[in-house]
Amino acid sequence: MNELINRQYYLASRPVAAPTPEEVPFRDVPLQDPAAGEAVIRNMFISLDPAIRGWMSEVNNYIEPIALGDPIRSSVIGRVVKSNSELVAEGDVVISVGGWERFTTGPAAGMTKLDENSGIPLSNFLSVLGPTGLTAYFGLLEVGKPKKGETVLVSAAAGAVGSVVGQIAKMQGCHVVGMAGTDEKCRWITEELGFDAAINYKTCGDYVQAIREACPSGVDVYFDNVGGEILDAALMCLNRFARVAVCGWISTYNDADAPGPKNLWQLVAESVTIQGFVVLDYIDRFPEGVAQLAEWVIAGKLKFKEEIVDDLDNVLSTFLRLFDGSNQGKLIIRNPE
Amino acid sequence: MNELINRQYYLASRPVAAPTPEEVPFRDVPLQDPAAGEAVIRNMFISLDPAIRGWMSEVNNYIEPIALGDPIRSSVIGRVVKSNSELVAEGDVVISVGGWERFTTGPAAGMTKLDENSGIPLSNFLSVLGPTGLTAYFGLLEVGKPKKGETVLVSAAAGAVGSVVGQIAKMQGCHVVGMAGTDEKCRWITEELGFDAAINYKTCGDYVQAIREACPSGVDVYFDNVGGEILDAALMCLNRFARVAVCGWISTYNDADAPGPKNLWQLVAESVTIQGFVVLDYIDRFPEGVAQLAEWVIAGKLKFKEEIVDDLDNVLSTFLRLFDGSNQGKLIIRNPE
Repeated sequence: MNELINRQYYLASRPVAAPTPEEVPFRDVPLQDPAAGEAVIRNMFISLDPAIRGWMSEVNNYIEPIALGDPIRSSVIGRVVKSNSELVAEGDVVISVGGWERFTTGPAAGMTKLDENSGIPLSNFLSVLGPTGLTAYFGLLEVGKPKKGETVLVSAAAGAVGSVVGQIAKMQGCHVVGMAGTDEKCRWITEELGFDAAINYKTCGDYVQAIREACPSGVDVYFDNVGGEILDAALMCLNRFARVAVCGWISTYNDADAPGPKNLWQLVAESVTIQGFVVLDYIDRFPEGVAQLAEWVIAGKLKFKEEIVDDLDNVLSTFLRLFDGSNQGKLIIRNPE
Repeated sequence: MNELINRQYYLASRPVAAPTPEEVPFRDVPLQDPAAGEAVIRNMFISLDPAIRGWMSEVNNYIEPIALGDPIRSSVIGRVVKSNSELVAEGDVVISVGGWERFTTGPAAGMTKLDENSGIPLSNFLSVLGPTGLTAYFGLLEVGKPKKGETVLVSAAAGAVGSVVGQIAKMQGCHVVGMAGTDEKCRWITEELGFDAAINYKTCGDYVQAIREACPSGVDVYFDNVGGEILDAALMCLNRFARVAVCGWISTYNDADAPGPKNLWQLVAESVTIQGFVVLDYIDRFPEGVAQLAEWVIAGKLKFKEEIVDDLDNVLSTFLRLFDGSNQGKLIIRNPE
């Protein structure tokens, strides 16, 4: 295998704002044979997620930071090209923690085999049937705990997580309102996904007034991807005993000086619970979640978008589109075989 | 009864900072007979609580704001001087929602009779056996949910709520650390109340370092009375799945421009739950809570302080001592018969 070259995008220094090509450069290194218990996979799909930005910082963000010099960490789907373990064999397709790189070498015990002939596109296991869909599933149902007839507000509602949250909330019998940044996204979530209402936060004017109009009975569950001013506005619209499920605050990730929310006193005023979570909190229940999500997808009850970009060499600029909202659904890098 | 004069401290205008005598002046008005279903009580004890400051603002703070012109609302214990209801009789001692006034007239249905010959000082029903003790009891056990061996951090730990929180946490088998503003208070909570450690937040220097030293295993439950910089520091010391129980943020009540917490991203980093609550959330379980607290008090397991001030005419300046920390335990106005 010594003739194979692995292009790796790695963390050269820790960004304080949006990461730059100087902070995340690439290098070409010869591929090494796997050590005992390890396998080498050729990455076919690389997942781009906001959480990756957190791992570039030096503090723990539910898992340890990416070490300086290491490839940028992300979920990947790849084909085993060399195995030094009985757990996986050459040719197997697996999902694993990998990186922004052509090949990932890692412990075979951390690789889960996928059936590439199941009829389900492999990329779905990084989106609706992967960490993204599971974040929506467990975050809404276990953290948000919506009850029939309640109102659920979702920020970044046309995003990979938010769009699934809203559809699951509709299946629970809730009044569902989404916030998104273009009229096209707003139409998609209402006309295609069945949200009851959408708010274009770039044109709506006063957030509090817009949320109150779209949620005439107040908000019982706020699923927050965004933080910042939208969180502050949502806090002012919460009902007593409301739940705020927080899976990340994308508006603050590239701004170390972002101010904290001003309206947290609503916690006591309305006996509100704000709960942070990550999908790994529910790792023991992933099989249940994937099975339920797959059932809904097959039944046509759960729609989703993937934007697949065929260019590892544009990984950083593609990643940054998560933060300006220009992506159309779950963002995935494909690295054609 | 027309000869009786009721001195009332009332809300003339809404304060934006610490309330002034212009915003909370008094008036002397002739006492009226109670309407049907109402009774008049002569207030013997008036409870002073930080939450009252919230009710002076124009927004809902779990109950409706005090209307302009109304007496400042607070819990009171008084003796019925005239009743127009079969529920209470002249001479009964009751606890009720009342005000900063000599006499309170209100629905007898909202008055709960107390036995003045039980051997328990009546003022205790406003402190350790009243809203204060119940806030500690339900807030710690139902919101904080401490498990044996966990670390519980309490701010305003020598205060009426915090001191009870810490002692209950010790009874749960927790490592308990309190933060207070004088060495004397720190000695009291460690030497008299059994806290494992105390931090004088006025002299300790860096909060995060001080908390980490006193909580070598991290913080599992943070009981927060205070907000502000201490909350931000505590957030940096939380363990995975930690719980933050918030019953109020006294550091921000008199500062409309107080910045929000900066470190809330720890919610996602450590899957933290922050839950606001008020004691009224548990009103159905008050009898259970009072019974348990009384058992602990009688057994000598729960110590507490009351600072009783015999001067209704100093009610406002006494109230403001809650915010500079100069009070010694639960602050109560006595209005001698």
